[in-house]
Amino acid sequence: MHGNFTYHNPTRLHFGEEAMSHLTGELKNFGPVVMLSYGGGSIKRNGIYDAVVAVLQETGKTIVEDAGVMPNPTYEKVQEGCRLVRDNHVDLILAVGGGSTIDYAKAVSASAYCEEEPWEKYWVNHKDPACPTIPVGAVLTMVGTGSEMNGGSVITNRKAGFKLGKVFGPALYPKFTILNPRFTMTVPQYQMVAGFYDIMSHLMEQYFAGTADCTTDYLIEGLMRSLIHSSRIAAKNPQDYEARANIMWTATWALNTLLKCGKGGDWEVHQIGHAIGLVTDATHGMTLASVSLPYYRHVMHDGLHQFKRFAVNVWGVRPEGKNDEQIATEGLACLAAWMKEIGVVTHSRELGVSEENLQQVADAVLILPVGYRTLTRDEVIDILRESL
Amino acid sequence: MHGNFTYHNPTRLHFGEEAMSHLTGELKNFGPVVMLSYGGGSIKRNGIYDAVVAVLQETGKTIVEDAGVMPNPTYEKVQEGCRLVRDNHVDLILAVGGGSTIDYAKAVSASAYCEEEPWEKYWVNHKDPACPTIPVGAVLTMVGTGSEMNGGSVITNRKAGFKLGKVFGPALYPKFTILNPRFTMTVPQYQMVAGFYDIMSHLMEQYFAGTADCTTDYLIEGLMRSLIHSSRIAAKNPQDYEARANIMWTATWALNTLLKCGKGGDWEVHQIGHAIGLVTDATHGMTLASVSLPYYRHVMHDGLHQFKRFAVNVWGVRPEGKNDEQIATEGLACLAAWMKEIGVVTHSRELGVSEENLQQVADAVLILPVGYRTLTRDEVIDILRESL
Repeated sequence: MHGNFTYHNPTRLHFGEEAMSHLTGELKNFGPVVMLSYGGGSIKRNGIYDAVVAVLQETGKTIVEDAGVMPNPTYEKVQEGCRLVRDNHVDLILAVGGGSTIDYAKAVSASAYCEEEPWEKYWVNHKDPACPTIPVGAVLTMVGTGSEMNGGSVITNRKAGFKLGKVFGPALYPKFTILNPRFTMTVPQYQMVAGFYDIMSHLMEQYFAGTADCTTDYLIEGLMRSLIHSSRIAAKNPQDYEARANIMWTATWALNTLLKCGKGGDWEVHQIGHAIGLVTDATHGMTLASVSLPYYRHVMHDGLHQFKRFAVNVWGVRPEGKNDEQIATEGLACLAAWMKEIGVVTHSRELGVSEENLQQVADAVLILPVGYRTLTRDEVIDILRESL
Repeated sequence: MHGNFTYHNPTRLHFGEEAMSHLTGELKNFGPVVMLSYGGGSIKRNGIYDAVVAVLQETGKTIVEDAGVMPNPTYEKVQEGCRLVRDNHVDLILAVGGGSTIDYAKAVSASAYCEEEPWEKYWVNHKDPACPTIPVGAVLTMVGTGSEMNGGSVITNRKAGFKLGKVFGPALYPKFTILNPRFTMTVPQYQMVAGFYDIMSHLMEQYFAGTADCTTDYLIEGLMRSLIHSSRIAAKNPQDYEARANIMWTATWALNTLLKCGKGGDWEVHQIGHAIGLVTDATHGMTLASVSLPYYRHVMHDGLHQFKRFAVNVWGVRPEGKNDEQIATEGLACLAAWMKEIGVVTHSRELGVSEENLQQVADAVLILPVGYRTLTRDEVIDILRESL
């Protein structure tokens, strides 16, 4: 465990099939006006909307409706939410949905009373809020994100030409999150497996960083093994409660700030994925899946010790009689086979990337000076081309 | 992840060689009177006492000295601490030491203003405090406990004839803990490896419980592998910072409530260990080490699937051509070899247990109706006799 760090994660997680029974108690901690933020109509079709509204009514809350949060939430929508918060003196933002909705809720929370330009302040310059913020609570309906127990908030600003992430501090973490694995079972197969890959990417982007042997490496390996095991079951039978429950719990711990302790992270796959998402509006997890293999083949030699460890400890590759490169390559082959098995997209052309918009995507890629290798723009283009 | 549960752990952890630099900021969150609770003279010899007192003085705190917290803190000492808190209107209890000191601080926190008899209320009847409690902060100097990020408080009541644990809720968790791995380096080898085994026991007592495949199993396996790896290095070279840092982090996560999620626990080894500690006053981790192998051999057939998994996933036992019992037995042999390698006590007679006091120890063992098998009193005696 290298370096100095502070770990503090105050989010209360209520997990299980009866997790919603805690909503009444949680709502008592907040004032009377609740903004109910959600996406499209899916939570209305599957009954979650009605269940949440019933509790809000029972507890005497005034509901401010805030529908239409899109899969890649836009800065324009954030500004609309801010107006709703100010106009109605909202006391709590209750986000019901997946990562996009919770990311959006945090963005609104920090921006509603911000006296500077929020996009510049938070997403471009990574400053912290100095204004009052609104407490956020969450009911999670799709796994992958980690947003349910962290300060992450990824927002798309088409005018600026970027999809960027801001990591807020613990004051912006959801105060509570309801995690009922059954709520995730109505998500279509495509979105479900995209979420599974998002989790794997969160784990890999933290695993493939740092140089020393670290307890965090072992924790990540454990979560990867759990995810691989349960995702194979869930991809075949999405109604398997145990598998879905294990995946939901893995997703939360994959990105709730624990795994960056003592290691840092890479996050370049997420940067390339965000650029694809900006240009194509493709599902987040699929954008990551489409570029991961080219990316990791590209940086494998710079972190060979860890790619070898990945092969042996995560995929059970037998090292006997093989050199490091062979072992590492075999690990990535196992990753590729698993991706095929669960059914994620492995070619970015399936998402709408082509030779025509490849430069546009590359222009939107933020190149981070961390991880095993800092890419050049030419390398980004090589990776994107290979991903087609 | 079976069942319904709430996870909430608000402790702020400051980790690293410069972790003490956060003490000033933390102290600003509390009132002017700080009770400084610690054990014997070791923190005076190694400079930690002076460093803490300097920060308390710089921040203008009034210090209430509370020395002499013993390795198995007694209920009498808790009552003394309660009087100090009440007489001096203490605003914060700052525990500087290992698990005993932090356990003691929580006991005082919950008992000082308790209107009922605290021993009966908390340790016997497991009720929660209804009275005001005092915030606790911690500077950890010995790993193993987990007390730095949970509500556990084990107290010895010789008059009642029991050493019992109470698990308080998040309000009693330390508000902050300073985790500087260098602070653990002056602990003598015997106490150091006892702490390592305490960690392993926390991991095993949560691992050997439950029936289903669970993400928590994978997390525990990861932490076990990290501990085994780093403890081998640290037992040979206690000054290896990276190994000690990994072990410190593993210890915190081994018992901070994460690993009971979705699983429950067994904890019978801790009950037998507590009884040995009550009668002999032996070092806690060593009491666990002395009875673990007989205990696990005794219950192995009741949880054979998990003992097999332990052998393969934690110790790398090759399963080919072996039946389940052979694989499980090989796993326990690996555990025994590791215990020998790091140098923990594997015979309770070395701690002062004998045929003469064996019945007395057995009388003090609390038999828990959980885990793979609920022991009879005769089985407790068999296990103790085998441990001699």
